[in-house]
Amino acid sequence: MYKQQLIEKLGKENVSQSESERYRHSHDESPHEAVEPDVVCFPTSREDVEVILEIARTYNIPVTPFGTGSGLEGQAIPVQKGISINFENMNAIIDFSPEDMTITVQPGVTRMQLNKYTNRHGLMFPIDPGADASIGGMVATNASGTTAVRYGAMKDQLLDVEVVLADGRVIHTGTHAKKSSSGYHLTSLFAGSEGTLGIITEITLKLHGIPEKTIMARCTFDSTENCAIAAQTLLLSGIPMMRMELMDAASIAEVNLQNGYDFPIKHSLFLEFAGTEGAVTEEVALAEELLNDLGCENWTVADNPTEQKEIWKARHDLSLSFVHTSGLDEVGADVCVPISRLPELITYARQLIGESGLKGGIWGHIGDGNFHTIVMFNSKMEGEREKAEYTNEALAKRAIEVGGTCTGEHGVGLGKRKYQEQEHGVALDVMKSIKQLFDPQGILNPGKIFLP
Amino acid sequence: MYKQQLIEKLGKENVSQSESERYRHSHDESPHEAVEPDVVCFPTSREDVEVILEIARTYNIPVTPFGTGSGLEGQAIPVQKGISINFENMNAIIDFSPEDMTITVQPGVTRMQLNKYTNRHGLMFPIDPGADASIGGMVATNASGTTAVRYGAMKDQLLDVEVVLADGRVIHTGTHAKKSSSGYHLTSLFAGSEGTLGIITEITLKLHGIPEKTIMARCTFDSTENCAIAAQTLLLSGIPMMRMELMDAASIAEVNLQNGYDFPIKHSLFLEFAGTEGAVTEEVALAEELLNDLGCENWTVADNPTEQKEIWKARHDLSLSFVHTSGLDEVGADVCVPISRLPELITYARQLIGESGLKGGIWGHIGDGNFHTIVMFNSKMEGEREKAEYTNEALAKRAIEVGGTCTGEHGVGLGKRKYQEQEHGVALDVMKSIKQLFDPQGILNPGKIFLP
Repeated sequence: MYKQQLIEKLGKENVSQSESERYRHSHDESPHEAVEPDVVCFPTSREDVEVILEIARTYNIPVTPFGTGSGLEGQAIPVQKGISINFENMNAIIDFSPEDMTITVQPGVTRMQLNKYTNRHGLMFPIDPGADASIGGMVATNASGTTAVRYGAMKDQLLDVEVVLADGRVIHTGTHAKKSSSGYHLTSLFAGSEGTLGIITEITLKLHGIPEKTIMARCTFDSTENCAIAAQTLLLSGIPMMRMELMDAASIAEVNLQNGYDFPIKHSLFLEFAGTEGAVTEEVALAEELLNDLGCENWTVADNPTEQKEIWKARHDLSLSFVHTSGLDEVGADVCVPISRLPELITYARQLIGESGLKGGIWGHIGDGNFHTIVMFNSKMEGEREKAEYTNEALAKRAIEVGGTCTGEHGVGLGKRKYQEQEHGVALDVMKSIKQLFDPQGILNPGKIFLP
Repeated sequence: MYKQQLIEKLGKENVSQSESERYRHSHDESPHEAVEPDVVCFPTSREDVEVILEIARTYNIPVTPFGTGSGLEGQAIPVQKGISINFENMNAIIDFSPEDMTITVQPGVTRMQLNKYTNRHGLMFPIDPGADASIGGMVATNASGTTAVRYGAMKDQLLDVEVVLADGRVIHTGTHAKKSSSGYHLTSLFAGSEGTLGIITEITLKLHGIPEKTIMARCTFDSTENCAIAAQTLLLSGIPMMRMELMDAASIAEVNLQNGYDFPIKHSLFLEFAGTEGAVTEEVALAEELLNDLGCENWTVADNPTEQKEIWKARHDLSLSFVHTSGLDEVGADVCVPISRLPELITYARQLIGESGLKGGIWGHIGDGNFHTIVMFNSKMEGEREKAEYTNEALAKRAIEVGGTCTGEHGVGLGKRKYQEQEHGVALDVMKSIKQLFDPQGILNPGKIFLP
């Protein structure tokens, strides 16, 4: 009945019940169990989204937004079936104002599409979660990545978000002004809400100038403690770091083995500096001096884009080198802790992986105190999945104990729901009240963030 | 009855009904009408705040938080009388972690106290609203100021806020991790909530490294349009500006006249560059080159702290030079618009001041598109107050029309309530629902943000 209404109102070309589309919308990049939606809608406008929510309301049908399916915590999996909303036809640039360094886009625009569009004006959208995610999905999970040390996360890029609420009201959470002290700050409430409070239909973002010059450097230390101290030292120096990544020695060994690199097998920092030419040159020299005093070895500078690309490729290859191990599944952690607690957490993570007897890697956005593990398991071997998941669980709990969070950038989705009570305490009840306020019927991405 | 309970529970030294304390807590720095509270409490701990709210709940008594009284929109005025909570005895540094560049403080700590404490560790808290405001008050109004172009506003500095809710629950909105995608982002909801959603009892802030070198420059342009284009050009260049302030020619004339300066009477930019020594030197040279191409005149660099202090003093003297005009009152605007719309708004503001026949100044945080007017009036002259207020009103409405906000940094308080509907539309209803959710009795700073 409601499917017929969707077809009538949206047009049959924008509604699919095909096996292939239902399969495509049943999963993301996470190992969470796939669930197929009953129907997939492809809205082309905010009005279409309003129609979908009206029908969902009337028939009490769950609605789950789907960006590009690159999420890592199952946010796009329609665990209670119903309607999956795919935004690929809502991928227009609505308003671009180079002089204001702002852009307004529909949620289906991807970050690479956005950069292609803005780069020729000397502007960029720096948030880089790795995948070519949709901007809507990146807002919904408060994504970040390697450049967060300089630019912050998605919530820090948002000027305004247009949202269709469950009851059909359409709101704008902000303005096009760079800052505001007017009314409650609703924008950040939707950043990271994973489609559970409303459906985002338009996003106004800050853009940033493309730095004149970029220089990369890598170096090694004898311990992860010293890597963390090096990161703190650089941050304290006031150098506006562009990227500051850690790979532990075991991960370097793996990436060398799998991809034929010959990086020194030691705990390694990958650094990026960006700004005006002379400023960057000086910053690199200062960084080298500061890190040498801390016992840094193998300091290597990559001055040209080709060399730089190669090094970042190695960094990205790390996760792939694990994932591509044929026949194995993987689970990954996404903890974020105060930097002072990072060394002990990394040591603990390596210990957990060792105890599991499984193969795994550790790398992280060390400037933010955010790091990931990936642990490989054979789902056909009894107990392996449990062992892999135990490393995740122990690490998330420890991160919360030391004043951090179970998820720095991937979001709660399905896998981090069980840590919400430990992490947020009484505030979790407040979050549930807000969910109830915005979605009394419980039709917006049910099953996410909160345990049933 | 409830006053007796306050005295019993808090101790009589922490509860005052004296005329002098009631007067001190009846007003802030704004021209809004003073209203005396019935009683002033001086909590020394979160537990005291819990006690105050319990009594307020039981007897349905309004509660209004008071920081240092430096607010500019009447947020601290207890318009429905009742209890004023003064946080001057909650001014402890709770936890300082230089290696994490974070600090946890009670709300009564002032920003100068905070900087005195952190500066010796090479760290600073950069948000500078001018006054030596309390951190609690700065969170409550989402304050910013001259350095927002580089560091953002208060909401961008917050890692965690401890809040006592109206119903007595105590929540923490975040963690000590630098970023998080866990649960709804409640922290920003409290930034700018002006004590209407809960009482803030603890704040964890990001700190920043003190730059090695600071250089100031000032220059002039023939039009405010060109000032705005210059600001855009600098932002696009990727130079991490520390400060970027505008004073229009009429304001320069006033500050020269009142304070004996001899600045060129033209539309002026005051710029600050900060970073490593060589980087800053190069950035200043690049900025000069870029601005020369745009027709900049009177480029003057201040390289040493004494000269720099003098120039920023002139900038700060501007508002004082008006305020100190004896016998006159003033009203001020705080609009923030997309930078591309700034020139027309400034032209409009100057036109409005001209039409009012009153004396006034215009200055602004041009890098953010945020500017202030101050218009002086004699409250004994019939019609002057209305004329002054009309300039404010027309400007706020125009700012909202062009995609901006009625308040960039001072907050809504009493004076900006009337623009909330135009600015937020349907979202204002959502804000009211959130207020109802957090404060069903309406005892938390009633009369603020929303019109009755």
